[in-house]
Amino acid sequence: MTQPTDPLPSWRETPAKGSIVDFVDAVTDSKSDTYVPEGDRVAVFDNDGTLWTELPMYAQLAFAIDRAEELGRPVDLEELKAAGIGAVLELVKLTHGNVTTAEFDQACRRWIATARHPRFGVSYKATVYQPMLELLQLLDDNGFSCWIFSGGGADFMRAWATEVYGLPTYRLIGSIGTTEFRIGDNGPELFKGTDLQILNDGPQKPVSIHTHVGQRPILAAGNTDGDLPMLQWTAASQYRTLQLAVHHTDGDREYAYDSDPLLGSGTGNLLQAAADGNWTVVDMAADWATVFPTS
Amino acid sequence: MTQPTDPLPSWRETPAKGSIVDFVDAVTDSKSDTYVPEGDRVAVFDNDGTLWTELPMYAQLAFAIDRAEELGRPVDLEELKAAGIGAVLELVKLTHGNVTTAEFDQACRRWIATARHPRFGVSYKATVYQPMLELLQLLDDNGFSCWIFSGGGADFMRAWATEVYGLPTYRLIGSIGTTEFRIGDNGPELFKGTDLQILNDGPQKPVSIHTHVGQRPILAAGNTDGDLPMLQWTAASQYRTLQLAVHHTDGDREYAYDSDPLLGSGTGNLLQAAADGNWTVVDMAADWATVFPTS
Repeated sequence: MTQPTDPLPSWRETPAKGSIVDFVDAVTDSKSDTYVPEGDRVAVFDNDGTLWTELPMYAQLAFAIDRAEELGRPVDLEELKAAGIGAVLELVKLTHGNVTTAEFDQACRRWIATARHPRFGVSYKATVYQPMLELLQLLDDNGFSCWIFSGGGADFMRAWATEVYGLPTYRLIGSIGTTEFRIGDNGPELFKGTDLQILNDGPQKPVSIHTHVGQRPILAAGNTDGDLPMLQWTAASQYRTLQLAVHHTDGDREYAYDSDPLLGSGTGNLLQAAADGNWTVVDMAADWATVFPTS
Repeated sequence: MTQPTDPLPSWRETPAKGSIVDFVDAVTDSKSDTYVPEGDRVAVFDNDGTLWTELPMYAQLAFAIDRAEELGRPVDLEELKAAGIGAVLELVKLTHGNVTTAEFDQACRRWIATARHPRFGVSYKATVYQPMLELLQLLDDNGFSCWIFSGGGADFMRAWATEVYGLPTYRLIGSIGTTEFRIGDNGPELFKGTDLQILNDGPQKPVSIHTHVGQRPILAAGNTDGDLPMLQWTAASQYRTLQLAVHHTDGDREYAYDSDPLLGSGTGNLLQAAADGNWTVVDMAADWATVFPTS
């Protein structure tokens, strides 16, 4: 007698895994009261801190600091931390604007080819969470369409994260800056300006889901209060839903924190809503047998 | 000996049809120099006037006029025409804002169930162009992903056009108004404001393609100067491309015009670019054996 292969081998046999397996079974069993037609199986994920490591700083911020140096405008990290969000946005303007989308894409690809995570010494691609890759695959295998709604920049993520997640470009949604179509010296081009057009965080996330998907999700996963509206919007679906709150409890293997030390986004409202709504809190230390891909 | 079924029976055997068939063959033949991998076969279409009839007025404007009357604020069409685009935008604010997305969706569905085209006496769903439905199907059968980038409102189109075209909701992109996530009396909701956020026309179309698809198309179809940037952006791809300019030449079966009598968008720049670039002009009178679906 052969055992069916476990689709979530990096998840320990805890209630978190049980809630995922139960949910997928319940919405895909055509005989179940809670069956959801395949076209309505939309799952949405935050990115930084939910699918990959966001400390000691977002990958995109590491890129911005490296690119500022490349552009002859080096940044002192301690000064940046002291100056706060305003200085970070100025850094983003400097490093993400005044460039065509094609040139920016190349800059991101050059960067990811050599950049290494300061603590783990590996490519940022290898700081993705193996249990979440398994979850994305499980959902895809069960007829879900998985989408990422990140506060990070869409152009930055799309340059290299599509292959990490195995998702088509259009499924990665992020913050966007002003972009202009123009006829340049080499023909038509899209030119990135320096103004932020949409900051894809907090209450903007459900709005972006409406704009980009046009359907209400039945599964949502996040890790900070900025993801709460997305989870609330999902939870109010007519269908059975699943909300996952990823809790960073594992200082040994990853990080243990309840607020982002640089940008200060907290987790208190999310964890309270999870407790109130019987949502699934994923305790990284307790629920994950493996954190990162091994090869 | 059996003949292969013609996938474009509503197209006459003219150069326009030939250019479509040649293009699809060239980009899907894996032995061809001009082969395009399936994941890169993105096709983009304007909606009003390209996929369905836009005269005597956009379906969305007919909806707005009917909804204004329903809201106790009837509109005189002649006054509206005389007042021009500013008055039209005010009408859109009145009829598309201050409502949840769920309520607006229902209003659109109620409208389309009974509204009839003033000249043809049929549902607006039946004013779609049969040759373009066949083209969408041919492309889908050949591994293309077809997307609509319309100047019309996304929420309006998505309420009923997805079934007309057989496209998932996320493939219909249009203009959007400000939208707010809030916790209402009945739980989380998305509330439509009255300000236009993105007018999806002209140079915004390639920008929206970048935001929503994240890939450059290899086929683009439009019918006015507002579609020209989308066709230019497509034509500058590294791949072999096809640009279609739908020309309204058939006053008997549809309409013959070179500028929209209400909003005034012209076709001169588009037709000039088509001539300069050897793009395919679709002459509705000459190239289409059938205009509308027959059943």
